[in-house]
Amino acid sequence: MRIELLMTGNELMSGDTVDSNSAGIAQQLSRLGLVVQRKVVVGDDPELLLAQMSAMTSACDLLIINGGLGPTVDDLTAEVLARLLQRPLTEHTEALAHLQRWCAGRNYRLDAANRKQALLPAGVAIVANASGSAVGFSATHGNCLIYCTPGVPSELFTMLEREILPQLQARFTDIDPVVITRLRIFGIGESRLQQRINDRFADWPAPLELGFRAGLPLLELKLTTRDQRDAHLHDHWQGRLTDEFGDYIIGTDDLTLPESVVQALQACGKKLCTAESCTGGLIASQIVAIAGASSVFEAGYVSYANHVKQSALGVRAATLHQHGAVSEAVVREMAQGALANSGADLVIAVSGIAGPDGGTPERPAGTVWIAWGAREAVQARLFFIPGSRHFVQALVAAIALDLTRRCLLGIAQEPAYFKDRAPRRK
Amino acid sequence: MRIELLMTGNELMSGDTVDSNSAGIAQQLSRLGLVVQRKVVVGDDPELLLAQMSAMTSACDLLIINGGLGPTVDDLTAEVLARLLQRPLTEHTEALAHLQRWCAGRNYRLDAANRKQALLPAGVAIVANASGSAVGFSATHGNCLIYCTPGVPSELFTMLEREILPQLQARFTDIDPVVITRLRIFGIGESRLQQRINDRFADWPAPLELGFRAGLPLLELKLTTRDQRDAHLHDHWQGRLTDEFGDYIIGTDDLTLPESVVQALQACGKKLCTAESCTGGLIASQIVAIAGASSVFEAGYVSYANHVKQSALGVRAATLHQHGAVSEAVVREMAQGALANSGADLVIAVSGIAGPDGGTPERPAGTVWIAWGAREAVQARLFFIPGSRHFVQALVAAIALDLTRRCLLGIAQEPAYFKDRAPRRK
Repeated sequence: MRIELLMTGNELMSGDTVDSNSAGIAQQLSRLGLVVQRKVVVGDDPELLLAQMSAMTSACDLLIINGGLGPTVDDLTAEVLARLLQRPLTEHTEALAHLQRWCAGRNYRLDAANRKQALLPAGVAIVANASGSAVGFSATHGNCLIYCTPGVPSELFTMLEREILPQLQARFTDIDPVVITRLRIFGIGESRLQQRINDRFADWPAPLELGFRAGLPLLELKLTTRDQRDAHLHDHWQGRLTDEFGDYIIGTDDLTLPESVVQALQACGKKLCTAESCTGGLIASQIVAIAGASSVFEAGYVSYANHVKQSALGVRAATLHQHGAVSEAVVREMAQGALANSGADLVIAVSGIAGPDGGTPERPAGTVWIAWGAREAVQARLFFIPGSRHFVQALVAAIALDLTRRCLLGIAQEPAYFKDRAPRRK
Repeated sequence: MRIELLMTGNELMSGDTVDSNSAGIAQQLSRLGLVVQRKVVVGDDPELLLAQMSAMTSACDLLIINGGLGPTVDDLTAEVLARLLQRPLTEHTEALAHLQRWCAGRNYRLDAANRKQALLPAGVAIVANASGSAVGFSATHGNCLIYCTPGVPSELFTMLEREILPQLQARFTDIDPVVITRLRIFGIGESRLQQRINDRFADWPAPLELGFRAGLPLLELKLTTRDQRDAHLHDHWQGRLTDEFGDYIIGTDDLTLPESVVQALQACGKKLCTAESCTGGLIASQIVAIAGASSVFEAGYVSYANHVKQSALGVRAATLHQHGAVSEAVVREMAQGALANSGADLVIAVSGIAGPDGGTPERPAGTVWIAWGAREAVQARLFFIPGSRHFVQALVAAIALDLTRRCLLGIAQEPAYFKDRAPRRK
């Protein structure tokens, strides 16, 4: 079975937008055991699009077209597909009703530009769009099944999951499903992980493919089998990996660090507060981004100016004067102030220099004190994290959340980043 | 002149890696006025690769192939190109010398796997790689000029800039550089913008291409000319667009809303504070993400629990009891408390229900009060923003920052989102 993707849009051709949709589509299809053979990207040029659609529908069994469903003149997918299918463009009742509902829900007037999104090739099947204005649609040309999907990622991926994948699963029943286990890891690098796996697991089975995907802040370890008969390998080897790297494994699938912290807080009925300087509220906002955070999060203090460390958190002027804002004494007073003012059970406090300016030879940019833990046992530690402002802020937030996760789960081992991210000796 | 890109690699096909190289290549080429017509991505399969290379070299004048130059067995570019050119693979002296230097500089032994990178089709021209082990190379097939480039982004982009672009510039001297103007817009949708442009600018010149790129939260409007003689159109039409949509235009190029607020604060020497409930510190963290924020940002209060609205911001218990947390009275007391405690000149305060839970029939999820402005003239307004928790939080942050920008710049017109995002009448 031959599967291809056709991504459209001038913004993809010019490079103004990086095409991440095609990667997501391929990943979703792979869960059904469907493998993409080729992706093609072309701009909003009707003749190029027509030639490409024609060539691709002749060559493959399934073609997913992405983009070009919007209201503007450069949205050409419906028009070009109508030419390919040699059918007229007609206003589809179902698509128009969807548009009317969509506009009504937003107090929008349904204007001519929007109404264009209901003009589709005659006879196509509508594919529901749960969140956006443009419906998707499917048709058959020769032996090729075609899906046209919206370019907005959230709309595309909801449509894939709720509509298109179930349709494909029902249609192509003879495919061997690929089984994938994804472990989400923080605090150990790809090459060290690979080396330790090579060293410890001489009996690693060949059918269990091992892959890595490095992100900021998490590393993903992906186990894949392509034959139903190898599916049993997953449980056994996930267990072996957990025995070896358990304290670094945040969870499976798409779990994030803030989610793991919210879950751990919920499990023990504890509440968290934050006191942030150089991360500027990033840690609090990552927690509050999780639905249900209100049951576990009390307060965040972004004490960016020094006088706010005093007024909002009760840090003493003498401590600031004697030790400087980026010091163990100050970060501990910030932590205690946040706990006292909010009544929370646990705290994260951060004071550091995100850079690029503000560093000194003694405390260069990237120097950060983090305090964390339960009211009665707050710990504090100094880290040195060279990199861009964005990198420093993101990694400090991740380390602080991981330390909180380890604290909540009662993990006693020290993470490798205590050594890796320690300040250089003078 | 027809230009195409061929991206290779199983990790691109599976979607484990997002292809950002092709966007970068297209952007670099566009500086010379070279426009990419098509990109194709295929995996590490020699037959598919050969068929694709053969088709593309017959159809275009310039083909840039990316990836597949490394030392492993799935790096196939040289081998497949040799078959296409019907030339033998031979060890190139220049490529081998480069490899020997590269290994010597790293104390690496030149092993057989690495040495494979010097095996290239006979007669190709070597293209230097300043940082990596694999050299690039170029050849001609029929009328098509082919460049083979490394997949590691830093190596690719250095090679493009130092080697390939100068060669192309010397070879294609008759190309007109493309001129691009990008305007960053907030508060008006793509379809309404398109409609107003159609309505107001009957004299829009055909050579000035108009493109849109919708993101969250900004919309980008891109003006492109492809002929030197049309370059003068940019200034004139940027002026006309600014006359028409000026209050919605944040700035040009890559400017973000938080950057525009930090710049406006710096320009007038004012300081900002925030008091956030449902956005959980997102607004503060977006400001603090900008280098230099310390000169304009004082304090953020994430008063997520109601008792923290009282303890940290002095909101009165009676106000909370009488009006509820999501009310004009409470958001105004939050704003005044943040101003009083921080000493800042301007404030952003937010109280709302991000959802999906926590809503009531009277105040459904997406109901948000925003207060903003200077100490002596704080304004407040109620918005209704249906959508996911992530969408609500992101859009509330953007609206609050845009209102602050409008306040700092003295823009008197009410933005369209006062109407579009108003709560529905009962």
